[in-house]
Amino acid sequence: MTRSLTILGATGSIGRSTADVVLAHRDEFRVEAVVGGRDALALAETARRLGAKFAALADERGGEALRQALSGTGIGSGAGQAAVLEAAERDADIVLAAISGTAGLAPTHAALKPGRRIALANKESLVCAGDAFMADARRFNVEIMPVDSEHNALEHALAAGLNRDVEKAIITASGGPFRTWSRERIAKAGAKEASAHPVWSMGSKINIDSATLMNKGLELIEAHHLFGLGAERLDVLVHPEAIVHGLVQWTDGVVTAGLALPDMKVPIANALRGDGRLRMELPRLDLAAIGRLSFERPDEARFPCLSLAKAALRAGGAMPTILNAANEIAVEAYMAGAIGFYDISEIVEKVCSTFSGRQMSTPSTVAEALAIDQEARQTARRLIPASVEAARVR
Amino acid sequence: MTRSLTILGATGSIGRSTADVVLAHRDEFRVEAVVGGRDALALAETARRLGAKFAALADERGGEALRQALSGTGIGSGAGQAAVLEAAERDADIVLAAISGTAGLAPTHAALKPGRRIALANKESLVCAGDAFMADARRFNVEIMPVDSEHNALEHALAAGLNRDVEKAIITASGGPFRTWSRERIAKAGAKEASAHPVWSMGSKINIDSATLMNKGLELIEAHHLFGLGAERLDVLVHPEAIVHGLVQWTDGVVTAGLALPDMKVPIANALRGDGRLRMELPRLDLAAIGRLSFERPDEARFPCLSLAKAALRAGGAMPTILNAANEIAVEAYMAGAIGFYDISEIVEKVCSTFSGRQMSTPSTVAEALAIDQEARQTARRLIPASVEAARVR
Repeated sequence: MTRSLTILGATGSIGRSTADVVLAHRDEFRVEAVVGGRDALALAETARRLGAKFAALADERGGEALRQALSGTGIGSGAGQAAVLEAAERDADIVLAAISGTAGLAPTHAALKPGRRIALANKESLVCAGDAFMADARRFNVEIMPVDSEHNALEHALAAGLNRDVEKAIITASGGPFRTWSRERIAKAGAKEASAHPVWSMGSKINIDSATLMNKGLELIEAHHLFGLGAERLDVLVHPEAIVHGLVQWTDGVVTAGLALPDMKVPIANALRGDGRLRMELPRLDLAAIGRLSFERPDEARFPCLSLAKAALRAGGAMPTILNAANEIAVEAYMAGAIGFYDISEIVEKVCSTFSGRQMSTPSTVAEALAIDQEARQTARRLIPASVEAARVR
Repeated sequence: MTRSLTILGATGSIGRSTADVVLAHRDEFRVEAVVGGRDALALAETARRLGAKFAALADERGGEALRQALSGTGIGSGAGQAAVLEAAERDADIVLAAISGTAGLAPTHAALKPGRRIALANKESLVCAGDAFMADARRFNVEIMPVDSEHNALEHALAAGLNRDVEKAIITASGGPFRTWSRERIAKAGAKEASAHPVWSMGSKINIDSATLMNKGLELIEAHHLFGLGAERLDVLVHPEAIVHGLVQWTDGVVTAGLALPDMKVPIANALRGDGRLRMELPRLDLAAIGRLSFERPDEARFPCLSLAKAALRAGGAMPTILNAANEIAVEAYMAGAIGFYDISEIVEKVCSTFSGRQMSTPSTVAEALAIDQEARQTARRLIPASVEAARVR
């Protein structure tokens, strides 16, 4: 049975991998809409290759270029936020939500339609507005299928039992480029060194989050919302080979693990599965060829962002939203050369402390979450030194 | 809800671990019957500790000692094959079948009662009479739950998807004591060296099977019957740490794995689970403390028993029954010092060739399987040199 699919963030890394999966299974999917950010020509090309009915570009200025590039194809188009929301709301069995950052929040939320599946790659829906987002997902009976390799692995492993029998759900971290570095050496590292991710090729902001281990902290927050597990039942394990992505430890001592070669097409194909799985023509995991898998505890002294994220998860309320917003600003400043590596965690900690006295309640709507996000960003910005260096780099 | 349980093989290694699990969950189980082999006093002690209603000893000669040891307890007793079968047939929700060898076949088969669960540790039910046993299990709607750590891990991992989406189910082997030895050195090794299993403490025959890798071959045959997977979808991976017990590779590139510390109480507790899992007070798997897991391909040149078992599985029909019988006799002769290590595989190969010309059909009853087993044993015995040394050791 053909299922209809909309791809939000079709021209990004996840979107392109999704297109590959869909093109390898043309009989199983019909593409309803594709959404891109700024690159009108890339989006038009994607829409044509996938035979989409509609293409929407977030950047209004590219609307005319998109329209021209699609003229004569019969593919409808639009540009700006309204067009993006229209694409998200159009009739489709599955929406793959891969617009990154808070920009992805509104369209992903708009995609919550009764009985639909969301293959979720937008972290902010859970990290910034998790309670509100999941409450609406449950209300509309939307199936949320995580695309992240760690959460996809947990989703699998959790199928082997009941939530109440889960003692711990563990996600793995490659450890980032600074795994073996001393604190002193890390302190002096610049954004270029921090961006050298050992396993995955990702966007630059995500690379920095991987170097600080904040990405794992954010993933713990995501896991909490996805699987209904509290902070005390969630943990991180460093695993440099990035083959085991998630593990579930059960009350009887059994551990179920999800493994795969580090290729985003695997969790994407998995999240797009129907009654059965998609057959992927990809290299298979060969553990004998790999030979060895190694594991170590994360060092929260060298990577304080992980402790901060765990603390925010334990605190709950608006704290994960605040943590995420402060981190975004701090990472941006680090990438611009305005602050050092350990200033990232210091700024996040300061912003979290500033807000913690206010006992802010859990944002109950996405709009509320975005308002808190904005406020936390402003607080964080005031902590960034307006140095000459930063101005020059920008 | 209390569930009733009968333990066949209560005084052996698996039986004793089962008793530990049951005693740690007294509210959840009521023990109906316990069956032992020869040790009347050990069986009486087990029956008393577990509060069983009935105890049966296979060895008729111990009947009187058992009766006396249980006098005044209100626990019924019996001895001999009829008493063992009576115990297996008595009303119980779960029968843990852990009598080892072909002696376990008839009682395990007698335990197949409508709607019941069999927690299966008797290999021969599947290796010697798999088709007949599983056909009856299906006919009586009996749930077969494997107790072996490898199959228990696969049972878990398979819960994450559909049979048709399984590309490969892989069981791991510790590699045995000769994993790193050269063929020349292995050829000269005696039963004492072969019995030094690196991870598990087991019976001596099983230790030899672990040194030849025949145990993994037999486990592939078991997996075939348990999970309905053909030889082409089953494989073995050497993993010396014995932490990952089984893996399932799916069509979409995902791999689901079952892990646990090597303690038989874990798969036993798992096989005894109800709606939820049992909570076990055991050390938890700590991958960071273990640090490293390693994997390698099994070397069928040094361990030809594995190829022979794979060939028997592919051949089907009566061949697995014949292979298993020939192996039993050859291992017995090796343990007695009558033959060398590589004579085990040679004898097994010769017996299999002898029968392969006869195109024997699949044994359709347990009795038929046992008849073929006997015939294959006789053929194997004729290949054992009746040396003075062997006579002396025996």
